[in-house]
Amino acid sequence: MNLEERVLQLRTRLGEICDVSATVSMLHWDQQTYMPPKAGEGRGKQIATLSALRHRLFTSSEMTHLLESFRDDLENLPDDSRPLVEVTLYDFDRDAKLPEDFVQELAQSESNAFEAWVQAHERSEYSIFQPHLEKLVDLQKRKTDYLGFEGESYNALLEGYERGMTTERVSAVFQEIGHAQSELVQAISETEPPSYHWLAQVWKQQNQWDFGMKVLSDIGYNFSSGRQDLSAHPFTTTFGPQDVRVTTRVHEDDLFSALMSTLHEGGHALYEQGFEEADERTFLAEAASLGIHESQSRMWENMIGRSLPFWEHYLLYFRQSFPGQLDSVDAIDVYKAINRVERSLIRVEADECTYNLHVILRFELEREMLSGNLKPRDLPEAWNAKIEKYLGIPVPDDANGCLQDVHWSSASFGYFPTYALGNLYAAQLFEKILEEIPDFWSHIESGDFKPLLSWLRDRVHRHGRRLTTPEIIQQATGSELESQPYINYLKNKYEPLYGISENPSIATLSPSEGVGISTRGSN
Amino acid sequence: MNLEERVLQLRTRLGEICDVSATVSMLHWDQQTYMPPKAGEGRGKQIATLSALRHRLFTSSEMTHLLESFRDDLENLPDDSRPLVEVTLYDFDRDAKLPEDFVQELAQSESNAFEAWVQAHERSEYSIFQPHLEKLVDLQKRKTDYLGFEGESYNALLEGYERGMTTERVSAVFQEIGHAQSELVQAISETEPPSYHWLAQVWKQQNQWDFGMKVLSDIGYNFSSGRQDLSAHPFTTTFGPQDVRVTTRVHEDDLFSALMSTLHEGGHALYEQGFEEADERTFLAEAASLGIHESQSRMWENMIGRSLPFWEHYLLYFRQSFPGQLDSVDAIDVYKAINRVERSLIRVEADECTYNLHVILRFELEREMLSGNLKPRDLPEAWNAKIEKYLGIPVPDDANGCLQDVHWSSASFGYFPTYALGNLYAAQLFEKILEEIPDFWSHIESGDFKPLLSWLRDRVHRHGRRLTTPEIIQQATGSELESQPYINYLKNKYEPLYGISENPSIATLSPSEGVGISTRGSN
Repeated sequence: MNLEERVLQLRTRLGEICDVSATVSMLHWDQQTYMPPKAGEGRGKQIATLSALRHRLFTSSEMTHLLESFRDDLENLPDDSRPLVEVTLYDFDRDAKLPEDFVQELAQSESNAFEAWVQAHERSEYSIFQPHLEKLVDLQKRKTDYLGFEGESYNALLEGYERGMTTERVSAVFQEIGHAQSELVQAISETEPPSYHWLAQVWKQQNQWDFGMKVLSDIGYNFSSGRQDLSAHPFTTTFGPQDVRVTTRVHEDDLFSALMSTLHEGGHALYEQGFEEADERTFLAEAASLGIHESQSRMWENMIGRSLPFWEHYLLYFRQSFPGQLDSVDAIDVYKAINRVERSLIRVEADECTYNLHVILRFELEREMLSGNLKPRDLPEAWNAKIEKYLGIPVPDDANGCLQDVHWSSASFGYFPTYALGNLYAAQLFEKILEEIPDFWSHIESGDFKPLLSWLRDRVHRHGRRLTTPEIIQQATGSELESQPYINYLKNKYEPLYGISENPSIATLSPSEGVGISTRGSN
Repeated sequence: MNLEERVLQLRTRLGEICDVSATVSMLHWDQQTYMPPKAGEGRGKQIATLSALRHRLFTSSEMTHLLESFRDDLENLPDDSRPLVEVTLYDFDRDAKLPEDFVQELAQSESNAFEAWVQAHERSEYSIFQPHLEKLVDLQKRKTDYLGFEGESYNALLEGYERGMTTERVSAVFQEIGHAQSELVQAISETEPPSYHWLAQVWKQQNQWDFGMKVLSDIGYNFSSGRQDLSAHPFTTTFGPQDVRVTTRVHEDDLFSALMSTLHEGGHALYEQGFEEADERTFLAEAASLGIHESQSRMWENMIGRSLPFWEHYLLYFRQSFPGQLDSVDAIDVYKAINRVERSLIRVEADECTYNLHVILRFELEREMLSGNLKPRDLPEAWNAKIEKYLGIPVPDDANGCLQDVHWSSASFGYFPTYALGNLYAAQLFEKILEEIPDFWSHIESGDFKPLLSWLRDRVHRHGRRLTTPEIIQQATGSELESQPYINYLKNKYEPLYGISENPSIATLSPSEGVGISTRGSN
């Protein structure tokens, strides 16, 4: 076969593999949305079988032969197929190291652990989950052995989520932000704690849902190629370019939790809906990394959804959505309430100032468990100690402690750091956006999200995996990964909000001055 | 490997294949319930890929080798694994005849045809669907060539749905029931047409849904291992013994359509929830045939759901479900309304007396298209002529004519006859049930469906494919397939209802005499 025919063959085979991956995603989606209670065991087997099949297809002798044939031909490949072959070879070189029975065992163990986690979380009984975590930690160690690594074994896992990133670099950046954020949180904690009595109402779930659906549509999410459902833990999943789904959860005692999760998952989904059509059913129509993925969700949730101009735009509609409940509440009130800083227990409900601290402690615990310094049986104690250290609050039970996240049930050590990296990338990109989009905040204030989405489509989304995350950040911002933009973003937003240091207090500013968006100054 | 090890290996491989089949079912389920509008094309590719993969797994050289090794060993197999090997060999001998690329092409064409059918049906534009039907008819012809057949080529397809049944036998039985039912319908049409003004109300969809959910639960459907959703065309699908799902549709101008479809699919689902746990993830945990499957849905829908004792039980709750709308309606009124006989256009809404006539015309058209005597382009004309012949009514448009059913979009020639066979099996089984379950109708009248479900579990469900349909019918009733029990059932029910012949008119009977259930006489 000549080169062109081989590329065509590769596309056919990748199409099949992507179909199987999409199917695995669907099995997971259904498991978390509509699956009947007793179907979990059978579902676990299905996911394990399909995961193993995907692996078998990708590492088959035919595929191996085909892929190897490109290694010496990379230079001869036309520009439009070189990235495809390179990315596929990169994945192949990782996946081929894992034996099929290991992949199947891992998938099966994850499904079992997920079912156990659901129960353990519900009952706040760590002992239900512990044996599964032990099994998964062992499997992750085996995985790092199969994959190989330089330096710390954690690198082998981190690379799977954040190509080119090292534990050392993450550790260094986390020190910088950990330090700065701890200081900021401390300063905030010394101010008079604000109170928001008006938040203590019952917010009708249907009205929350409807409001979220409108916002999701407004920001550009395409409902012809997606949908939103309910699940205990919100997530975004993709079965193809025309089928990118999000989920949320709605609590009637929490006005913002559903909306913010919708904006967050919406940000993820806009990314996935923005890949090139030509890359469909190949590995190019995927996120460059989880960190860059998270930068998109964080930007829509925090930079936009927690900005004053956003709420100036939505205030009227917001009031109408909850008749009689918000009549005396104005945009600044919402802005203040939605940016409350509070040392709290639950990561997914944490504010922007404390969020990364939650991530840092998970990163540290994962490294210790992987290295064997921390045994899974000692996790609750270690968790509670770190919460005490970083946030200074006691953990009442494991449901509010080490059982709160689903992630460890899916054996995803190395995943958590990408949440904090996402914050950093988002701040770097956002700095640039404020420079490059004229009258940025006027657009937001008038509910026009198109300029932002177009910018993101152009600089981030459309590339898929044609660029790596460092390349995307470099091309878009002219810099490498940096912690300073995020630290600046936080200080510029929260110091005025809490009347800290020389920044003017928010209370002295009028909405038209664009409160809380003082990064506009860098425009 | 010794025999025991080979059986174990077979079970492992079948488990994988069943997982892939379940996944294909899930892709279909989602396509018809929750899938976003634009995702159809991608979904088609996924279904095609997974169908081809299933085929590849089942006909792999490893599987072929394994299965062939059993052929001379069938006598040596222990009793608990012989049926498993036999059924698997039976399927293998059919599937192995189909090349993988044919399977993939068929699955892909079906998905495309389904999408086209949805549009064609919506707009009532046959031309949208015609090229797809042409393609599918060609593919079905090729399929019969691959499979081989004795007598008419239609036999090759019929065998796929109704093992052991022949076109000749179906044709003969259809003549008997066609003749008897035409006569009965003619006699009914000569009586004074009853009117049911009270039906012409708006029936709140939520209330219909709630009522259906209660009935579904009452008859024994297990919601821990299943769920009901909405879809345009109701269906039952199974992803495993603990995940058997049904769908329905709700029309606010039709009081009974949703409930009857729920009972119908519920009957299918009770069958699937009744397979032996030990047969899980093998081909034994499947229906013996589609005809016997349909006998279960028909029994719950018609013999039970359209009986007077059923409505005597539910009347109060029914009234409460639609406050103020049914106060002057009693059980006999419902019984009469729900057993209206009317020559009408839509098969799925047809009554028990005309239903088989709809099936017979489809059976005839399929045979003609497969033999080439009827070209797909001439289908609408041929359809309309047959409706005129069998039902004496004009067809206003193709949506109410040859586009009404989804089935031909999934290339399922040979499927329709099983609907009528289901009616016949149901009547044969029901005759026996009335003989063997003491005070049968008192149980129904008091809402106790357990004796019926237990009987069906014992005589039909638990066997899965351990017995063939002829064996099930023979063991349960002592007879072969017969048309007379269904003809008797219809006459005994509808002649009194319409005051025909020597049977007393229903109007002269009181509910306590068990009107319309004169088959009780055979008790």
